Amino acid sequence: VNLSGYSYFAAWQIDALAEKHGRRARWRPFLLGIAQQVTGQGNLVEQPLKGDYSLLDMKRMARHLDLPFALPDPFPVRSLASSRAFYWLLDEDAALARQLALNIFTACFGEGKDTALPETVALIAAGLGIDHDACLAAMDDQAIKDRLRDETQLAIDRGVFGAPFFFIDGEPFWGSDRLEWMDKWLAEDGW
Amino acid sequence: VNLSGYSYFAAWQIDALAEKHGRRARWRPFLLGIAQQVTGQGNLVEQPLKGDYSLLDMKRMARHLDLPFALPDPFPVRSLASSRAFYWLLDEDAALARQLALNIFTACFGEGKDTALPETVALIAAGLGIDHDACLAAMDDQAIKDRLRDETQLAIDRGVFGAPFFFIDGEPFWGSDRLEWMDKWLAEDGW
Repeated sequence: VNLSGYSYFAAWQIDALAEKHGRRARWRPFLLGIAQQVTGQGNLVEQPLKGDYSLLDMKRMARHLDLPFALPDPFPVRSLASSRAFYWLLDEDAALARQLALNIFTACFGEGKDTALPETVALIAAGLGIDHDACLAAMDDQAIKDRLRDETQLAIDRGVFGAPFFFIDGEPFWGSDRLEWMDKWLAEDGW
Repeated sequence: VNLSGYSYFAAWQIDALAEKHGRRARWRPFLLGIAQQVTGQGNLVEQPLKGDYSLLDMKRMARHLDLPFALPDPFPVRSLASSRAFYWLLDEDAALARQLALNIFTACFGEGKDTALPETVALIAAGLGIDHDACLAAMDDQAIKDRLRDETQLAIDRGVFGAPFFFIDGEPFWGSDRLEWMDKWLAEDGW
């Protein structure tokens, strides 16, 4: 149920990677906390040693990718509102939903904003010309809430336990550090 | 206290990577289970979903690196005996200690052998011309046992929580998937 910092980095790379190979990435947010419960994992940044390392690693990754990085305070940031807004937009305008997700990721991990609140998400949406009040209402819509639960269960059923998680024709890849492998996998059609 | 499959892959790459940049890798085995306790992590392959994925990922990595891979049965394989044999050799002949570690990794993850038993380790050592009985005795030597405990504590004090784990002039890198980053880091002298 929290936003993943590594997914922020992957979000900025995945479309270019897919396009390079004539593919299209289908974005599907899910509730990470629920998927992590299956493996009994807690939140990364809160773990002793591993938390400190992952923060250092994310800052290093940001410098390498030339992306802004600021750990939001408080952290972690719940992703319920933003994921619901995404699914509300998805069927009507997938490109716009993706752009909203990117802007939320950037507000959260690029500018350190707390994007957990529906109001914050609605304001970011409004910046893309999306109706602020309709967006707010959608995040409280039971059908949208159910959609996010269903997508999360679908992800777990497919074997997803962390984020970011990718499938290329059924082949699973976990972690933003697998993007280079995915590039090779697509270029060589697997191995 | 178990052998790490991902360390097997890293072990076969790290010396060439270091040499490419005029560096030398200092190998230091430690008791992974004890380091993992600090973060509250269990054994990777035993975790739901994540275990299945990591097995698929290791097989894929082996094919990519053109290394043999066979998951030992039973798994995981305890690393106490092999780590002790390593430290016994280290001060006298570091290159030989490294070669023993490589051969144990290959026996374990390349051929699926159970290398937990001191006798198995001593036989692999004998294959390198190392005295079989002296090796067996060393694995039962309290000073060697203490050395391994001390090295494990040293690793944890430095922030190590998983394997393989690397430091380049103090900069930490976790995971065999960070080798490409380490290559860039060394080439660019950090970023």
